[in-house]
Amino acid sequence: MVTKLALLGAGRIGKVHARAIAEDKRAKLVAVADAFPEAANAIAAASGAAVRTIDEIEADKDIDAVIICTPTNTHADLIERFAKAGKAIFCEKPIDLDVARARACLETVRKVGGKVMLGFNRRFDPHFRAVRQAIDDGQIGKVEMVTITSRDPGPPPAEYIKVSGGIFRDMTIHDFDMARFLLGEEVDSVMASASVLVDPKIGELGDYDSASLVLTTKSGRQAMISNSRRASYGYDQRIEVHGSLGSVSAENQRPVSIEIATKDGYTRPPLHDFFMTRYTAAYAAEISAFIDGLENGTPLSPSAEDGLIALALADAAVRAAEQKTSVKVTY
Amino acid sequence: MVTKLALLGAGRIGKVHARAIAEDKRAKLVAVADAFPEAANAIAAASGAAVRTIDEIEADKDIDAVIICTPTNTHADLIERFAKAGKAIFCEKPIDLDVARARACLETVRKVGGKVMLGFNRRFDPHFRAVRQAIDDGQIGKVEMVTITSRDPGPPPAEYIKVSGGIFRDMTIHDFDMARFLLGEEVDSVMASASVLVDPKIGELGDYDSASLVLTTKSGRQAMISNSRRASYGYDQRIEVHGSLGSVSAENQRPVSIEIATKDGYTRPPLHDFFMTRYTAAYAAEISAFIDGLENGTPLSPSAEDGLIALALADAAVRAAEQKTSVKVTY
Amino acid sequence: MVTKLALLGAGRIGKVHARAIAEDKRAKLVAVADAFPEAANAIAAASGAAVRTIDEIEADKDIDAVIICTPTNTHADLIERFAKAGKAIFCEKPIDLDVARARACLETVRKVGGKVMLGFNRRFDPHFRAVRQAIDDGQIGKVEMVTITSRDPGPPPAEYIKVSGGIFRDMTIHDFDMARFLLGEEVDSVMASASVLVDPKIGELGDYDSASLVLTTKSGRQAMISNSRRASYGYDQRIEVHGSLGSVSAENQRPVSIEIATKDGYTRPPLHDFFMTRYTAAYAAEISAFIDGLENGTPLSPSAEDGLIALALADAAVRAAEQKTSVKVTY
Amino acid sequence: MVTKLALLGAGRIGKVHARAIAEDKRAKLVAVADAFPEAANAIAAASGAAVRTIDEIEADKDIDAVIICTPTNTHADLIERFAKAGKAIFCEKPIDLDVARARACLETVRKVGGKVMLGFNRRFDPHFRAVRQAIDDGQIGKVEMVTITSRDPGPPPAEYIKVSGGIFRDMTIHDFDMARFLLGEEVDSVMASASVLVDPKIGELGDYDSASLVLTTKSGRQAMISNSRRASYGYDQRIEVHGSLGSVSAENQRPVSIEIATKDGYTRPPLHDFFMTRYTAAYAAEISAFIDGLENGTPLSPSAEDGLIALALADAAVRAAEQKTSVKVTY
Repeated sequence: MVTKLALLGAGRIGKVHARAIAEDKRAKLVAVADAFPEAANAIAAASGAAVRTIDEIEADKDIDAVIICTPTNTHADLIERFAKAGKAIFCEKPIDLDVARARACLETVRKVGGKVMLGFNRRFDPHFRAVRQAIDDGQIGKVEMVTITSRDPGPPPAEYIKVSGGIFRDMTIHDFDMARFLLGEEVDSVMASASVLVDPKIGELGDYDSASLVLTTKSGRQAMISNSRRASYGYDQRIEVHGSLGSVSAENQRPVSIEIATKDGYTRPPLHDFFMTRYTAAYAAEISAFIDGLENGTPLSPSAEDGLIALALADAAVRAAEQKTSVKVTY
Repeated sequence: MVTKLALLGAGRIGKVHARAIAEDKRAKLVAVADAFPEAANAIAAASGAAVRTIDEIEADKDIDAVIICTPTNTHADLIERFAKAGKAIFCEKPIDLDVARARACLETVRKVGGKVMLGFNRRFDPHFRAVRQAIDDGQIGKVEMVTITSRDPGPPPAEYIKVSGGIFRDMTIHDFDMARFLLGEEVDSVMASASVLVDPKIGELGDYDSASLVLTTKSGRQAMISNSRRASYGYDQRIEVHGSLGSVSAENQRPVSIEIATKDGYTRPPLHDFFMTRYTAAYAAEISAFIDGLENGTPLSPSAEDGLIALALADAAVRAAEQKTSVKVTY
Repeated sequence: MVTKLALLGAGRIGKVHARAIAEDKRAKLVAVADAFPEAANAIAAASGAAVRTIDEIEADKDIDAVIICTPTNTHADLIERFAKAGKAIFCEKPIDLDVARARACLETVRKVGGKVMLGFNRRFDPHFRAVRQAIDDGQIGKVEMVTITSRDPGPPPAEYIKVSGGIFRDMTIHDFDMARFLLGEEVDSVMASASVLVDPKIGELGDYDSASLVLTTKSGRQAMISNSRRASYGYDQRIEVHGSLGSVSAENQRPVSIEIATKDGYTRPPLHDFFMTRYTAAYAAEISAFIDGLENGTPLSPSAEDGLIALALADAAVRAAEQKTSVKVTY
Repeated sequence: MVTKLALLGAGRIGKVHARAIAEDKRAKLVAVADAFPEAANAIAAASGAAVRTIDEIEADKDIDAVIICTPTNTHADLIERFAKAGKAIFCEKPIDLDVARARACLETVRKVGGKVMLGFNRRFDPHFRAVRQAIDDGQIGKVEMVTITSRDPGPPPAEYIKVSGGIFRDMTIHDFDMARFLLGEEVDSVMASASVLVDPKIGELGDYDSASLVLTTKSGRQAMISNSRRASYGYDQRIEVHGSLGSVSAENQRPVSIEIATKDGYTRPPLHDFFMTRYTAAYAAEISAFIDGLENGTPLSPSAEDGLIALALADAAVRAAEQKTSVKVTY
């Protein structure tokens, strides 16, 4: 039996998910909704889905699940609404920029027994998954220290910064989730040093563009995160895990891996310059995992709780950077 | 206007091409033919194409082009037949194992003004293309020496070896084409040292499993090719071009690029172990290039002539290995 | 004119310096002193130096400079004594484990116009120097973030831990100096998370074995340091500097750089497993720089002040780790 | 007891050997001879050796062995003379440019029971040695194919080319020896394609500057050698050995191993640009091995026979390139 899916939000990431669904024989995209008819029409034309309103999708008993790719400030409302409507939910991160709102949303989901998966796509990157697999296989012994380097090719526009919730909730949130994915133990406290080094306009908007964070678990495991809103050489995404028996790391990815040697040295091309090309395989794998979960009735992961915890870590980081102290995380 | 394609041969490689066509909005797979109805049905179900006979496809005026993925010994006949029927042709390599038959086929194609592209997929690998681009951009100056390492994970079954035409026509043929793609000048003579080092059964069938070749152009440019039917560490596919101003190389590809460090050293996973996963992007790009050519009326490349020349180089290699001498190539 | 040197302390590091002096035609080792006659005799035999007491060396007007490689708790006294005696001084780090004592020592040195160079050997590693050179050449623009990974192959014996001054004063002190060498701006505050993950005995001695630190400069530049007393794969010593125009990094060094590919993957040998083989070139270059300074009258660098500041950073780290807060550095 | 050595020839390579002897406590350089007094004096001053004539050295019963670093055309004569004088001999390659002369020289050495080691320094490179060790340890199974890339940074002056004996006897001779070191079986036949691509003047002198060779052993093992007199990116020296269970390779070496990432890509510095800096460790290790052999009475290796065989391979290559055919090697 084919799972019937509806897509809420037909923007950039909506298109990516629509294509992933088209590749998966176990599911079919039957409806798409967007405030901009053109966007919805484009996906409808490519996928064979019907253009519908959100109300219509909510009411349609034939639709099994929704993929929420609408703006962040609609996520919590839509999750609650579709959980109540009995539909499984895949929602892009974050649940909400406000922890209290996110917590309330989760409360509602729990009450109605809703099934929610959160779009932390990086967990599905084949290289990062292989790092986790090596840990699970015991190849590096007990995990002790995680190092995450995460730098964007360039800062987003000011308009985006304004509504982003700040660097920790917008950018580091992926790294918080990745740290948890790798540490094997919950984070107890957060330290952060954050500055404006890339663009003074980001500072004027009350945000940072460069940050170094240290997360510590109860047993003393440590994760370091290095963030910058600018990396001339591309989308810098590395992880390394150090354990009692060794280390495992995932290096950066580039679209083309040649090397040119001249009198000036040996040069390889820059990295991917866009998260969508860097994480192409991850996006496809995460939708496939969502469909897996629906088909087999296995727990959806990463869960809404994972989304809430990452947000709590971001909140702790905000306070840690302001107060220049280690902040205990409250879940 | 959408180009209408038919697929002849619904085997392993046929499926790959069907999927590539499905990804390209400019074309549509409308028909598929195969001696085994199950194979044809599977592709038909996934693509929406109709199952047809070769005769029906030949007679259908609505079909613009065919993709030939049938067994090698049918290629020349089908090329002639569909060239006469006025359809553009994409054909898997080789045209035929016999140079004379391939030459006759080309003669027929020329007479009827047929359009044929040959499936030397490696020319479309993004890394190898980038190597060629670096040469075209003048980054390494004048090309002087090409080195191609091409090793299979393991030998094919004896049944395949018997009908393969021998290692030079079956395996090295890709490297001959790649050498020509990079040398920028036609090959004048071929030297070859070939042995049976991997499996004595291959020798009993009159074939070799290990070969070292040197191709020389008129002006003295040299290409070295190293072939083995076995590489424990995966599908070993490297090229390097040395020029007057420097070198450019494309390294091996692996599905997952992590590194594990322990007391025993630093270990990265083996390479791709299958040509289809190694050259996934290349297969998609070659079908896209075929559709490009049909849409824009630009010359199809690599051409049937390219196929014939690679075959002539393979023939020269056979004689060079037997006679232990340098053999002039006759086109 | 040849510079005449005396060596105080004929242990492991003393031998390394004696050999470096032997390689340099501009200097000659004329005397060596050690509490253990055997150690002094061995160096004397190899170098042609005479075995002398510290008093004799102090009194010898012919000796231009001393190399202090005695135990840490003698450094400050010997520096003061030989500065008063008018001899130039090269002293192994640290000046003292106590900041106040180190500051008093420097005061004395300043009063008598003493010339002191401190043995932060890593500044002379050719790879790290090249990183600094790339920064000085403007290749990565303005420095923003420094990442230092510094892990020992294994923990030192408990006897050593007891007198080491703790991980920050013993091990991280090198990284503090390296961070300063690369940041281009003084450190304003220090954060540290430190734990006992490697060996509980280290904890029983009141020390840590695993630490993650973040240093922040006044303008907001950040340096991250990752320390562990154990790395199964060897002596892990990496630096990376991220700037406005790009990044520069120095990778780990191994004694033998081969790669073995088998069905289990591609394996390179472990790293150097000992700081003396890892930093062979650095030790020679630092003595050469000391002799340079004496010959040319140029300032000795790194200076005793550099030693004091690194110690102050270590003290700040101790407090930061205990109090779980960011600590302002007082010089 | 310390071995007493004399150095014949105080040029560039003589200095390197004198320094290696100075580092080894088991030996002492007692005499040095050179047609140019200045050169001899310089080494004498640095080492404490006496400046002597070749006759004096020959007559001195106290001298155990000689290191021959004089011009090539004197090698055979000096080997014979000092073998007769009962001294052990280390001689730079080649014995002579003429195989017949080299063979006669060996005949004389055999008659008088002389002990001769030939200076194929690359066998002592730690990376290449580790490759051989991996083979000996069975890590790649049975050796099947060897690939040697050997390119000079730039062509030597015309004066040198004239007396060099041609590229095969001058440059490839190192690669012939390395191939034998790795193949584990004697070479049966040689194929060669050689051209003038770098500098027409080299062609005018009757030599080649670019060559691709294939060596084949009796059992069919193959070695490929790629030579060029020019590599803009430095001294290109790589080896790779492919066997039944895997491959082992040694990559290029660079003086400084940093990487700079900018918008233009990731760049590592060029390679060593001089054979003396590339093979520093190898030169020291080969003299150490010579002294080992003298001390322990173990066979000296590589032997004069190894020198003769490499020369025979060079002769075969000359004919192979001229006659464009595979040439059987006669020893």
